[in-house]
Amino acid sequence: MTQYTHQTAPTQIVEVGGIRFAYRRFGKPGGVPLVFNMHFMGTMDHWDPAVTDGVAKEREVILFDNAGVSSSSGDVPETFAEMGANAIAFIRALGLKQADVLGFSIGGLVAQEIALQAPDIVRRLVLVGTGPRSGESMDTGTPEGAQIFGATYENPDDLWLRVHFTPSQASQAAGRRFLKRSQLRTEDRDPQVAEIAALAQRAAIAKWGAKRENAWDYLKDIKQPALVINGSNDVIIYTINSYILQQNLPNAQLIIYPDSAHGSLFQYPALFVADVTRFLNAEVPFPTEERSAA
Amino acid sequence: MTQYTHQTAPTQIVEVGGIRFAYRRFGKPGGVPLVFNMHFMGTMDHWDPAVTDGVAKEREVILFDNAGVSSSSGDVPETFAEMGANAIAFIRALGLKQADVLGFSIGGLVAQEIALQAPDIVRRLVLVGTGPRSGESMDTGTPEGAQIFGATYENPDDLWLRVHFTPSQASQAAGRRFLKRSQLRTEDRDPQVAEIAALAQRAAIAKWGAKRENAWDYLKDIKQPALVINGSNDVIIYTINSYILQQNLPNAQLIIYPDSAHGSLFQYPALFVADVTRFLNAEVPFPTEERSAA
Repeated sequence: MTQYTHQTAPTQIVEVGGIRFAYRRFGKPGGVPLVFNMHFMGTMDHWDPAVTDGVAKEREVILFDNAGVSSSSGDVPETFAEMGANAIAFIRALGLKQADVLGFSIGGLVAQEIALQAPDIVRRLVLVGTGPRSGESMDTGTPEGAQIFGATYENPDDLWLRVHFTPSQASQAAGRRFLKRSQLRTEDRDPQVAEIAALAQRAAIAKWGAKRENAWDYLKDIKQPALVINGSNDVIIYTINSYILQQNLPNAQLIIYPDSAHGSLFQYPALFVADVTRFLNAEVPFPTEERSAA
Repeated sequence: MTQYTHQTAPTQIVEVGGIRFAYRRFGKPGGVPLVFNMHFMGTMDHWDPAVTDGVAKEREVILFDNAGVSSSSGDVPETFAEMGANAIAFIRALGLKQADVLGFSIGGLVAQEIALQAPDIVRRLVLVGTGPRSGESMDTGTPEGAQIFGATYENPDDLWLRVHFTPSQASQAAGRRFLKRSQLRTEDRDPQVAEIAALAQRAAIAKWGAKRENAWDYLKDIKQPALVINGSNDVIIYTINSYILQQNLPNAQLIIYPDSAHGSLFQYPALFVADVTRFLNAEVPFPTEERSAA
């Protein structure tokens, strides 16, 4: 059997409900795969091969473009509930009875919706650089985010240096290494996200972030073991939102890495892969026994 | 060479500055030892052998009673600065040039003082269930803490079930297992902490917690890699204080475990030992390279 990697996995298509979903699937087969849900304006090529190939050593990894994004057909809906439903349709179309679900940034909002709407499918959740409904500054977005996304860049990819990394020398150096890694795949790359798709994502973010009474009660219904991860200084979705997730999810662990921003998983790929792999591999994720089952 | 354990390590004495410090030392020798700083009203016997013996598999563990506490002579000073100075005197008296320092609860305040006053000694810091100067509700203590410490208990040890564990069935069951483990050592146990010592600790807590301007600036001076750990629902030193520590320490990672309280290390000993051991063993604690050195 050929074992594909981040760089060699072919883009495949599965069609369901009139939507052609583009996806790539690679890694060690046989267990519960991990489905990756991408950030604002992101495609399959915005993942870090150090993360995806790292995770793929011990499990199957499934990257995909949700409806209306990049290589997938259809429209980007203006709610995360609908994006979650689309993601569920995609997962079911692959014939999966169970999946672990990772969501990064707005992918974390999709991941929460998947868990809420299809709890039978989701075994465990990994929520990175994300937040709850009505999270802090999630309706309007942060002023830092407005500044970063509003600026122009000599090299368009430099946008991600500011979105995902802190201004520190160490973080920026890590960011440049990440950008290089994300360019290593040269063939069969995803097209850029269309402006109309990004606008729909923005509209959905505003609705998700709108202030509500008892906004965080819904998190009690996400009973899966969850690992919540963020950087110490996320200025896109403020770090405190990860704390709020942990405090309101019934069974979640929080990890915050030092001197890092929205893209902590890209800054500390070795730590992130190890933390996620341990969490997903553990027979009991949070054992109270003296010795863990592992 | 005899390898002692939590239960068999003899209580030794080292005298410095007129104070006779009681301590126990065990585990794998040869590296940087981990010095444990204990909580309010706690003695060497209040540590969990699942934690200390777990950590001792890969490094030397040093438990001690700070000045005026239990088997150690002297008085408990009314500031953590002085308790830190006493702890430093103890560490130096053992001839150690370098140590990793773990502090739990008010032991975490002592640990911060050790790092501030003797940065040359401290290699890495582990801060559990603790907080910064002027932390939230750290001047007066929390109302929950007042209630818990003010109540009377059929079995005096049941106090710790409420201090260290949440009301959930799983947490209380873990708490009862912890209490059993902490009773396994039957010989050469530490005497209870004297009332006068506890009062001095309380006075020091009030001073530490007092509101100050720019209260958290001092944390910038603690440059050692730090691992900050707490339970999700610490009602003795509110969990948010661990978040504040992470946000203000220049090089700290935060871990918050689910459904747990002040004594998260006693509820999840296997996770705690693994997390601490990885952090202390790592050549680079927070590597930005694709693969960690380990």
